[in-house]
Amino acid sequence: MSTKGSKEPKKITFMKDKYNEFHEWYDEILEKADIIDKRYPVKGCLIWKPYGYKALKLTMNILKRLLEETGHEEVYFPTLIPEEIFALEKDFLEGFSGETFVIEGTLSKRLDRKLLLRPTSETVMYYMFKLWLKSYRDLPIKLYQHVNVFRYETKHTRAILRVREIASFIEAHTVHATKEDAEKQIREAIEIYKKFFDSLYIPYIILRTPKWDTFAGAEYNYDFFTVMPDGRAIELGSVINLGQKFAKAFDIKVQMADESFQYVWQTCYGVSERVIGVLLSIHGDNRGLIFPTNIAPIQIVIVPVIFKGKEEEILSKCRSIYEKLKSEGFRVHIDLTDRSVGDKYYYWEMKGVPLRIDIGPKEVKQEAVTVARRDTGEKILVKDEELVSKLKELMEDINRNLYERAKKWLNSNIHTLIDISDKSKIPEKGIVKVPWCGRDECGLELERRLGKEALGFNPEEKAHGKCPICGEKAETWLYLSKKY
Amino acid sequence: MSTKGSKEPKKITFMKDKYNEFHEWYDEILEKADIIDKRYPVKGCLIWKPYGYKALKLTMNILKRLLEETGHEEVYFPTLIPEEIFALEKDFLEGFSGETFVIEGTLSKRLDRKLLLRPTSETVMYYMFKLWLKSYRDLPIKLYQHVNVFRYETKHTRAILRVREIASFIEAHTVHATKEDAEKQIREAIEIYKKFFDSLYIPYIILRTPKWDTFAGAEYNYDFFTVMPDGRAIELGSVINLGQKFAKAFDIKVQMADESFQYVWQTCYGVSERVIGVLLSIHGDNRGLIFPTNIAPIQIVIVPVIFKGKEEEILSKCRSIYEKLKSEGFRVHIDLTDRSVGDKYYYWEMKGVPLRIDIGPKEVKQEAVTVARRDTGEKILVKDEELVSKLKELMEDINRNLYERAKKWLNSNIHTLIDISDKSKIPEKGIVKVPWCGRDECGLELERRLGKEALGFNPEEKAHGKCPICGEKAETWLYLSKKY
Repeated sequence: MSTKGSKEPKKITFMKDKYNEFHEWYDEILEKADIIDKRYPVKGCLIWKPYGYKALKLTMNILKRLLEETGHEEVYFPTLIPEEIFALEKDFLEGFSGETFVIEGTLSKRLDRKLLLRPTSETVMYYMFKLWLKSYRDLPIKLYQHVNVFRYETKHTRAILRVREIASFIEAHTVHATKEDAEKQIREAIEIYKKFFDSLYIPYIILRTPKWDTFAGAEYNYDFFTVMPDGRAIELGSVINLGQKFAKAFDIKVQMADESFQYVWQTCYGVSERVIGVLLSIHGDNRGLIFPTNIAPIQIVIVPVIFKGKEEEILSKCRSIYEKLKSEGFRVHIDLTDRSVGDKYYYWEMKGVPLRIDIGPKEVKQEAVTVARRDTGEKILVKDEELVSKLKELMEDINRNLYERAKKWLNSNIHTLIDISDKSKIPEKGIVKVPWCGRDECGLELERRLGKEALGFNPEEKAHGKCPICGEKAETWLYLSKKY
Repeated sequence: MSTKGSKEPKKITFMKDKYNEFHEWYDEILEKADIIDKRYPVKGCLIWKPYGYKALKLTMNILKRLLEETGHEEVYFPTLIPEEIFALEKDFLEGFSGETFVIEGTLSKRLDRKLLLRPTSETVMYYMFKLWLKSYRDLPIKLYQHVNVFRYETKHTRAILRVREIASFIEAHTVHATKEDAEKQIREAIEIYKKFFDSLYIPYIILRTPKWDTFAGAEYNYDFFTVMPDGRAIELGSVINLGQKFAKAFDIKVQMADESFQYVWQTCYGVSERVIGVLLSIHGDNRGLIFPTNIAPIQIVIVPVIFKGKEEEILSKCRSIYEKLKSEGFRVHIDLTDRSVGDKYYYWEMKGVPLRIDIGPKEVKQEAVTVARRDTGEKILVKDEELVSKLKELMEDINRNLYERAKKWLNSNIHTLIDISDKSKIPEKGIVKVPWCGRDECGLELERRLGKEALGFNPEEKAHGKCPICGEKAETWLYLSKKY
């Protein structure tokens, strides 16, 4: 049964090369490792299996904790949005109308108006904020919700990375009395996301989106990007300064200390399940997944290495180590299936369990266990009494190693490109940064000439040289890449 | 701001009588106590505010823990269901077609087929189970998901109790190789729900639904009922034996040990956010809500009773008690607003915080605090060094008291009715149990004559006397009531 790989591990007969055949590798490993099942007959809608869903929950819970710690309160707003509310902010409507699902009735009845399925919750929430807010003393509001959202993606869908039902979306929405407070909130949100991606060992760059690609209804946004194994950039999360655009569209005003009524200032920021699709892609290898220990559904798997005549002492040691580690709070599993030891190794490596413990006659005799690292394959003998502290140490080391590998990959995929005239020198994969005067028309022309999309720029990063389009002094670097 | 009552408590100027004007009481308290906001302009769709949502999460987490402990694994299946899959089980289709929302396009495009919004997930899951299951060794499957579901209710909607988007629905689905295994699972599910409602201090009766009211697509179901303050019965949860009906409709077969292929046996069971609407109704009183301590968003509120010249010592003691209780794991809040002490009392009573701690000059002097119980209003002086253990003791006592009050209410609302001929003796409120021969036509006639709906019967409870409709020997009791 697909949800219970642990019961009947099968011999692994793959695997595609992660870098050369990334999409095949990705699709294969997600299904084999019981992360998701994509055979459901609605395009872009997936089944999250127990193993995958557990990893997803562990991942999203990290972000929820970070939001709670910074004073964000969890709420739930409805999924269904009346068309007239959805349409209040015109840029937003235009940006989302093509991908927003519409309900017009039930199987037996026509509704008297159209209801839309949230692609994101600005309009739902801000309609209510108007009712809630009277005075600047009611501010700030810092709310978040963890919900499913729906987007009729017209681009090619990809498991977890680009779907039509996002099963797990954490969107935060804040309201402030002043522009400065909203900007401060943007900085806080960026710090929260930094901590979040850091704790998943995903390296990133943070860029301000160019004007022509800004979130619908926003003043500006900062996006977090990383580079996937196929060399294309992917957005991990977005922090958006809405300014007063929605406040004006939804007429959200508060009375200030000086008794005047002013429109409020708003921000929002969101991260979806996509982050775990990225994480699995970045950390995995040709043997399968590799989970960082903090989000691994199983952190340690125990494999009995049975020798005839020694069964009972080996199994008894396995069980006592299992109980010990469980009571210490590790997520530990013991593989008691009748598969061969080799099959078990392959299977749990493929599932990405970061640490394996082998126990055979040698280990029993020496009052020790053999610990194998998933990331390096290294095996060491650890004395029983040192096991817990050694496991903790190894976990940190695995995570550090995953991060360093990922960081090296990202760095090697960011290329400075001063001269764009020689086509042969334009890297096909990864991100290029090009000196840029800052004008939209030059940015758009750079996209065309390089055949890449602009990801954005870092306002604090001054470029040297000249804009290769207009020849004027470059203000900053424009980052471009093929993109998910 | 409505989500932040703690900032600006307002003097409470209500309250309706819970028993005589229940619906007014209910609507008023849910809004005043910041549980929900029902001003959202789509009928049956609510906003869950931070305080209410926290209580909801604490509540649903109890059930999730119980499911995990009994080997149920969490998953996520899509919200959108193709019409042809939804229609596979004919009773199910007929039962749900009127209340199932349909998507036919986006704002700018027509889809090539209808997609339905899950009212519950049998069809989505069972379509996949067919793909997953090959052998009896793959069984049992025990899965659950915690999701939003959508039902276009045609009955009058009521905040939390009857809504069109159920924001929080926990549905479990199991598959078994034999009829006996499925029946065993039904018993396990009933035990899980018993523990769940017990831990919410909600008393209940468990009844098997009469045939004419069985869940669409099921063989039979057991429902948990309690009685609301207006004397009407309400269903808390449902445990459903699907037999092989869906297995046949979805062609889910496994190969048995004897190599034959057999249809599987299935069960499902679900509980929604409704449970918290019931809980608040049952435990509250005319001063507002009363939370059991295990799901109270705030378990203890500290109110400084400031006297001139003593401000600093009082506040300092408040803070140190706050820190102490927080570090002990209590959900504690300190009310530092500039409202009067009386206003604070009213406010936190209304919000249902089970315990209040008052600290003024007397308490500082005596190295003690005054603890007030929300349920009884009783106040006691507790020495600082005994505080933690005393609070734990009081919490248990409050929960016990809530349960006893609720149990007394339920018991006083179940009436045995042997003779139905004298209309004046038929209780208008509560549940009546009537001797019943067990035949559908007599059951339906009892519904008509009494003007109540049949809730069900307990197959193990033998009745004495005769069926008042046909005059034949009663087999059991039929329970009837006006019902939500």
